[in-house]
Amino acid sequence: MAKELKDLTKRSEDYSKWYNELVVKADLAEQSPVRGCMVIKPYGYAIWEKMQQTLDQMFKETGVQNAYFPLLIPKSFLCREAEHVEGFAKECAVVTHYRLKNDPNGGGVIVDPEARLEEEFIVRPTSETIIWGTYKNWIHSYRDLPLLINQWANVMRWEMRTRMFLRTSEFLWQEGHCAHETAEESERRTVQMINVYADFAEKYMAMPVIKGVKSENERFAGAVNTYTIEAMMQDGKALQSGTSHNLGQNFAKAFDVTFINKENKPEYVWANSWGVSTRLMGALIMTHSDDNGLVLPPKLAPIQVVIIPIYKSQEQKDAITEKVRHMLEEFRKKGISVKYDDADNRRPGFKFADYELKGVPVRLAIGARDLENGTVELMRRDTLEKETLPLDGIVDKVERELESIQDSLFARALKLRQENTFKVDSYDEFKEKIENGGFFLVHWDGTTETEEKIKEDTKATIRCIPLDGEEEEGVCMVSGKPSKRRVIVARAY
Amino acid sequence: MAKELKDLTKRSEDYSKWYNELVVKADLAEQSPVRGCMVIKPYGYAIWEKMQQTLDQMFKETGVQNAYFPLLIPKSFLCREAEHVEGFAKECAVVTHYRLKNDPNGGGVIVDPEARLEEEFIVRPTSETIIWGTYKNWIHSYRDLPLLINQWANVMRWEMRTRMFLRTSEFLWQEGHCAHETAEESERRTVQMINVYADFAEKYMAMPVIKGVKSENERFAGAVNTYTIEAMMQDGKALQSGTSHNLGQNFAKAFDVTFINKENKPEYVWANSWGVSTRLMGALIMTHSDDNGLVLPPKLAPIQVVIIPIYKSQEQKDAITEKVRHMLEEFRKKGISVKYDDADNRRPGFKFADYELKGVPVRLAIGARDLENGTVELMRRDTLEKETLPLDGIVDKVERELESIQDSLFARALKLRQENTFKVDSYDEFKEKIENGGFFLVHWDGTTETEEKIKEDTKATIRCIPLDGEEEEGVCMVSGKPSKRRVIVARAY
Repeated sequence: MAKELKDLTKRSEDYSKWYNELVVKADLAEQSPVRGCMVIKPYGYAIWEKMQQTLDQMFKETGVQNAYFPLLIPKSFLCREAEHVEGFAKECAVVTHYRLKNDPNGGGVIVDPEARLEEEFIVRPTSETIIWGTYKNWIHSYRDLPLLINQWANVMRWEMRTRMFLRTSEFLWQEGHCAHETAEESERRTVQMINVYADFAEKYMAMPVIKGVKSENERFAGAVNTYTIEAMMQDGKALQSGTSHNLGQNFAKAFDVTFINKENKPEYVWANSWGVSTRLMGALIMTHSDDNGLVLPPKLAPIQVVIIPIYKSQEQKDAITEKVRHMLEEFRKKGISVKYDDADNRRPGFKFADYELKGVPVRLAIGARDLENGTVELMRRDTLEKETLPLDGIVDKVERELESIQDSLFARALKLRQENTFKVDSYDEFKEKIENGGFFLVHWDGTTETEEKIKEDTKATIRCIPLDGEEEEGVCMVSGKPSKRRVIVARAY
Repeated sequence: MAKELKDLTKRSEDYSKWYNELVVKADLAEQSPVRGCMVIKPYGYAIWEKMQQTLDQMFKETGVQNAYFPLLIPKSFLCREAEHVEGFAKECAVVTHYRLKNDPNGGGVIVDPEARLEEEFIVRPTSETIIWGTYKNWIHSYRDLPLLINQWANVMRWEMRTRMFLRTSEFLWQEGHCAHETAEESERRTVQMINVYADFAEKYMAMPVIKGVKSENERFAGAVNTYTIEAMMQDGKALQSGTSHNLGQNFAKAFDVTFINKENKPEYVWANSWGVSTRLMGALIMTHSDDNGLVLPPKLAPIQVVIIPIYKSQEQKDAITEKVRHMLEEFRKKGISVKYDDADNRRPGFKFADYELKGVPVRLAIGARDLENGTVELMRRDTLEKETLPLDGIVDKVERELESIQDSLFARALKLRQENTFKVDSYDEFKEKIENGGFFLVHWDGTTETEEKIKEDTKATIRCIPLDGEEEEGVCMVSGKPSKRRVIVARAY
């Protein structure tokens, strides 16, 4: 067994430590010398690329086009929307100078005090301000609308406590910024995009999510409404995985973006913005992986099938390789990404453990005896179950197994969530049960005071008001005041 | 004719003005409110995406993997390699603080003086330092080599004089950073990547390039050798379009990156780095476009074929649309991107001019009479020639035309370069001729003094020592000292 694997902490021992170790051991990312920033390693980046390509295609199918806006935001721009600046101007990277020089006193290279900027720039924490500052020139008439733009970019928020993928000072994301003629159309797009995110999470990441609306307190700074998808991790904590914000006319007013409507009258433009980030990598890892390492849904696995030859002589190896060659072609024809690992400097057992650690969904092992018998050993990463199968038809069999793994992972995650979602009506019961994690469907009186009390008492927050929730008369579990529907409360990442 | 087009300055009047106007009028990019930074608009970004996808595939075919490294570089990292800091630490964006706050004196939001960083960060102008600081942990043995990594990223250099795509403070690029066991292997990779760039330029951008080596003076800061591809723009000026640097062991030594070689001895790692940027967009525009607007090679055109119906009644329009529907499917089956512009709010003449301005390679126009006769009008954007053709077999015909346009654009650009490349032996003749632009094959004594004199006298620089140049005894056109081969001198962007 590979050294790296032996050292992996078990989830039951310390879930948080297990996660941190797994990210590094599976070669996904590592801490960089820059505080709070990570290096995304090739294997981790390959998964992110698959996410990007899929999402990009999904966005484009709804009419969205990509563009690129500046990294640096003038300080004054950030301050134009009052709530926005409260939310984003606090912890950020501030560019104050544009030149270094040699220290005349021999102290090496120093910031040139004469190269101070008249106005400071902020490294974008999000791009609403610079984008709406630009849209002013792009939008004049209803004929210019809707404007459906997305940007793939890096952003920066000076986080004090960071964890790789989940919360880092710099992260990669996409941010969509749409402009519409009417409030209704903008609301429809806001909902459409949270649905795209939910589809992506469920169909590609095999991660069930709950779609809902954020409480006023948890809204995006400057939004009139924020939609979210919330997923349950294996420790019962929630992870907010994507958000879509209806911005009303707030940014249009802040940046004076008007259009001449069909009645020939000037009107402020209606806006929404929506984003997912490399945080999805953290969600993916924590939803499926186990004590043996990463478990990847086939649709996002950079390597879907690995084939490992087991041989004692060059002759045996050659015979296996000959047999495998044809199989590799068949896999590639089907668009299945396959790796044949015939390296001599690592033993089969080491390879087995390594690909388990890396979450490769299907492993095929072929030895000399298999050749004689016309068989191959197949292992599914999700169940770790092995099966000896005829070589004949193995490619079709693997294709079906990949589909089965994708489905099973989703089903398993859904079951976990269902088993850990509780309707609770007593605050005492809630306070006791929350210690073990899980989602709690509770009645809430809708006030920020109650929300903050829950958070103070239990560190749990209102994750969302579920879209598919039913009307139900009840009383707030904290205040006893009337409530019309249940919300989801949980501890969260 | 579209208003935008009527206003486009002619190349012969003012080439530079023509370029600046075209970038904006063709909807490729525009100045942003951030000094020296541009907004890349959806149409421009769609071309860049095609470039990215093609290059990414080409890199991966040579074994390169993508990864991502931090945006911010600690000041001390930049200073580790002596020549590198001289080249890159001068004009850059410096992050000195990590927080804003409300001014207690009511002056709005200000930089919090208490949030000063102990060590300043630089927004990456290029990533050698942060990457080699990371490779130290990744490379221990020859078994870890070669390490072939690429990053798609934004970078920033505080340029004083900027022009969209050609020189902007922030730009998008890719930077490859490879680590090797031997000097020979690293040199081979350096050359391999300049060949990849040349192939991309010639086969996809239809832009002929000269591969060569930079003079010592023009090398990348910290490199032992820089390879370049140089293209000639329509005004006879050179545009450096991609570079590949053999870094020797300079960065390995600066960051103490050693490996145990096959003889079991520690050795510094051998490095190279290579990059192309959104500057290629400028090269693409200036190589092919004309006084009617953009001209795009079909392989990089977001829309390859536009179909415009010409009708006087809804009935006519419906009949045309019916005919076109089948054609659209055929185009899509062939992987040809096609747009059917049946919008009622713009006249055909306006559409014609607009798609000319946007450089769509092939335009098909179909009117009521065409329907009767079973014909269609085809216009090639490169020659502006129109031809009436049978509707039958038009999709195959267009496919051949697209290939022909791709080839013609390359041939035309090559012819321009050949007609404007001169062997010159007298400095007086050179000084006279350089005023009209062009590439000059001249003998040079190999000294920096002569190089600087040429630049001072004529603003021309040594673009490269061509790889395919022949040995030829001669004397330097400036100093009369002996020279063994000709170099290319030109004014450059």
